[in-house]
Amino acid sequence: MFNKEVYTSRRNSLKSKMNKGVALFLGNVDSPMNCTDNTFYFRQDSSFLYFFGLDFPGLAGVIDFDNGEDYIFGNDVDMDDIIWMGPQVSIQENAEKVGVVKTAPLAKLNDFISGAIKQGRKVHILPPYRAENKIWLEQLLGISSLRIGDYASVELIKAVVDLRSVKGPEELEEIKKACATGYEMHVTAMKMAQPGAWEQKIAGTIEGIAAAGGGIISFPVILSQNGETLHNHDHSQILREGGLMLVDAGAESLLHYASDFTRTIPVGGKFTQKQREIYEIVLAANNKTTELSRPGVTYKSVHMAAAEVIASGLKELGLMKGDVKEAVKNGAHALFFPHGIGHMMGLDVHDMEDLGQVYVGYDDEVRPSTQFGTSALRMGRRLQPGFVVTNEPGIYFIPALIDQWQRDKTNADFINFDKVNEYRDFGGIRLEDDIVITETGSEVIGKRVPIDPEEVAKVVAG
Amino acid sequence: MFNKEVYTSRRNSLKSKMNKGVALFLGNVDSPMNCTDNTFYFRQDSSFLYFFGLDFPGLAGVIDFDNGEDYIFGNDVDMDDIIWMGPQVSIQENAEKVGVVKTAPLAKLNDFISGAIKQGRKVHILPPYRAENKIWLEQLLGISSLRIGDYASVELIKAVVDLRSVKGPEELEEIKKACATGYEMHVTAMKMAQPGAWEQKIAGTIEGIAAAGGGIISFPVILSQNGETLHNHDHSQILREGGLMLVDAGAESLLHYASDFTRTIPVGGKFTQKQREIYEIVLAANNKTTELSRPGVTYKSVHMAAAEVIASGLKELGLMKGDVKEAVKNGAHALFFPHGIGHMMGLDVHDMEDLGQVYVGYDDEVRPSTQFGTSALRMGRRLQPGFVVTNEPGIYFIPALIDQWQRDKTNADFINFDKVNEYRDFGGIRLEDDIVITETGSEVIGKRVPIDPEEVAKVVAG
Repeated sequence: MFNKEVYTSRRNSLKSKMNKGVALFLGNVDSPMNCTDNTFYFRQDSSFLYFFGLDFPGLAGVIDFDNGEDYIFGNDVDMDDIIWMGPQVSIQENAEKVGVVKTAPLAKLNDFISGAIKQGRKVHILPPYRAENKIWLEQLLGISSLRIGDYASVELIKAVVDLRSVKGPEELEEIKKACATGYEMHVTAMKMAQPGAWEQKIAGTIEGIAAAGGGIISFPVILSQNGETLHNHDHSQILREGGLMLVDAGAESLLHYASDFTRTIPVGGKFTQKQREIYEIVLAANNKTTELSRPGVTYKSVHMAAAEVIASGLKELGLMKGDVKEAVKNGAHALFFPHGIGHMMGLDVHDMEDLGQVYVGYDDEVRPSTQFGTSALRMGRRLQPGFVVTNEPGIYFIPALIDQWQRDKTNADFINFDKVNEYRDFGGIRLEDDIVITETGSEVIGKRVPIDPEEVAKVVAG
Repeated sequence: MFNKEVYTSRRNSLKSKMNKGVALFLGNVDSPMNCTDNTFYFRQDSSFLYFFGLDFPGLAGVIDFDNGEDYIFGNDVDMDDIIWMGPQVSIQENAEKVGVVKTAPLAKLNDFISGAIKQGRKVHILPPYRAENKIWLEQLLGISSLRIGDYASVELIKAVVDLRSVKGPEELEEIKKACATGYEMHVTAMKMAQPGAWEQKIAGTIEGIAAAGGGIISFPVILSQNGETLHNHDHSQILREGGLMLVDAGAESLLHYASDFTRTIPVGGKFTQKQREIYEIVLAANNKTTELSRPGVTYKSVHMAAAEVIASGLKELGLMKGDVKEAVKNGAHALFFPHGIGHMMGLDVHDMEDLGQVYVGYDDEVRPSTQFGTSALRMGRRLQPGFVVTNEPGIYFIPALIDQWQRDKTNADFINFDKVNEYRDFGGIRLEDDIVITETGSEVIGKRVPIDPEEVAKVVAG
């Protein structure tokens, strides 16, 4: 945990942004796997972690904007808990570690919240994503769990996004640690990318590296020879010579900051010429992104620039045609690159996605696109120093999408479908680093996972 | 997945046990980790798996006891799903794999259930443990998510417990596979049990072995030098020479059958004399359990016999005193052995715990005890061929509990507190195998993880 001043300062910053009422932050409880007491690993809510730091289940935090007080609600342990879970520090002692003086048992939270409501004070909540917390909020606020999401406070969301978007030096240190574990995961996967290997064996092994590092995976490992499926969690295949293995994986640090890298590796180490050509385009788009990212630039413009690199490269290979800028304007690149260039990263791999992507990635100036492809861009607004984003261009050949576009003649002026169909079995390539926006530009965080095709080949060869 | 006849036969057996109405089995949905779309690994509901076999989210199964029909409700994929998740087999094709002919989109489930309710037919449900399914049931049945658990059907629970308690040969094969992975996890942990090793590194590594085997861990890994904490999920310590590392861990097979073993390993390989003496008592209790377990015997009597082995051994060491049978009758052994001898195991590590332990482990004849220690026994009723249970005696020295008993003079006639206090820093030892009840006795499932103290020492030494 950071020292208590970090948490006190964050709560004070929030108080300075909010006018009145109280903010209620429910911590997470354990998530049942196949019964109430057999649970997934515990993952605290990120906004609770940000403001209250305590990393165990069964807590709620309250910030009172009218009197400036902070509260932590939680229950102390009894003898049964000691026998099964071990001796625990009291809630009071834990609260002091994050600079909170006022604590009370959970049963008092109901009275506190009911009291605030009866006084006509606004109770600000963030959008709940865990069903347990939706039901808990129903008990506290009297609003049905089916509708509670509609009562999230946009004022609180915006204030939290403002704070969490800019990473402090202590947060960047944590992200570096997560990136170091991510590095080890990806290099291990590269070494294992041999013909005959089972995808699941590799995916499980790198998940174990995250666990052995003391954190967890920051999201379910994507690892597949079918890289054209963007979030492919099927790991059932055996790697074959000549295939491409796409690995999109990252870890959390002990304090739950994320890393998120993607590499695409030729099975056995040797790229075919076709693969190498596509790889070089994606690598150029990745490098372009880091080069262009700096304070004041919108990430949407960076996305569009990466799309142009992709369209231009594909035109050179004869897969696209016509004017590159015109093609990108019409969204023709999205047949190959149907997602966004990246997203914010921090305490969540898609940082603050639970608060609503439109508040995290957009603002009054930069609005989301409705065009297929760019509509999937999670982060469009102007970059600021301290923002951490991923840069992850990709080129994929998705047979079902190719067939649909060809049938509907979508962007037929910009696409050579005959040529594209020669790539139907290609799969997909994505290359992703994590970058931090500095005062003057941007930097890849941590030691860059091997990305140069020659270097990748060497790592695979051992 | 097993072949379709297995699932059809299971549903037919259920129909033969139930009189009328419909049974509604909700499959699980993905569990959000830190936002709706960043989830834990998917774990299907075990009873859904048992009757409907399909292992992906967003399904519901219905068995109609009035007309004998089976139904699967679920949605087919669209283009967006194909781009992000890959091409998928249709619900209809999937349903056929488990012998179900009638399928419909999820939206039709509401109509189906509303129709049944309006006709005055009973809709049987199992107790929901996932909050998402409590809310889903509120939408389907109109009963508040806060109270829905009260509406579980005891008739359905009992019928399901009857069926799932006796493992078929195809299930035992799966359990063997889970045990093989568990074997590898435990032997790896033994080899890593060296002074200076970080508990988390070992815990994460064996979790990775489960993942690399294609399954997952069957429950959160318990691994600690503080073995006296029964469910210790803190892995923060560095192993020290002379310590004992308790490891309680298991894996799931690809079809989600569990294994669950416990070993206690002297760090560096050498037991002290004190450790060796306690270890031998626990090992004797473990062996006694397997020896006594056979059809017709109650598992409660096996538990009591193990408690006597423990009390008798502790008396020899001077930690207990008085008549052994009298001591056990009074629950004096529970200062050292405050939990049960074991539990059913199958599709869940604590099999069917979600259905209610009293239905799984007890019946009209054998009722739960209210005495501290034996009250924690999850499985008490008569054993039958095909039952799979764990046998896991343990001896622990829990300082807070020792202090409480000494202060309150609890069972002071049977306990030498002065001697016990010499063991305050001992920690705990537990030894657990998985056994199947055969026609004539019981057998340890799979290759037994090294348990003989000399053999354990050899494995640690490499």
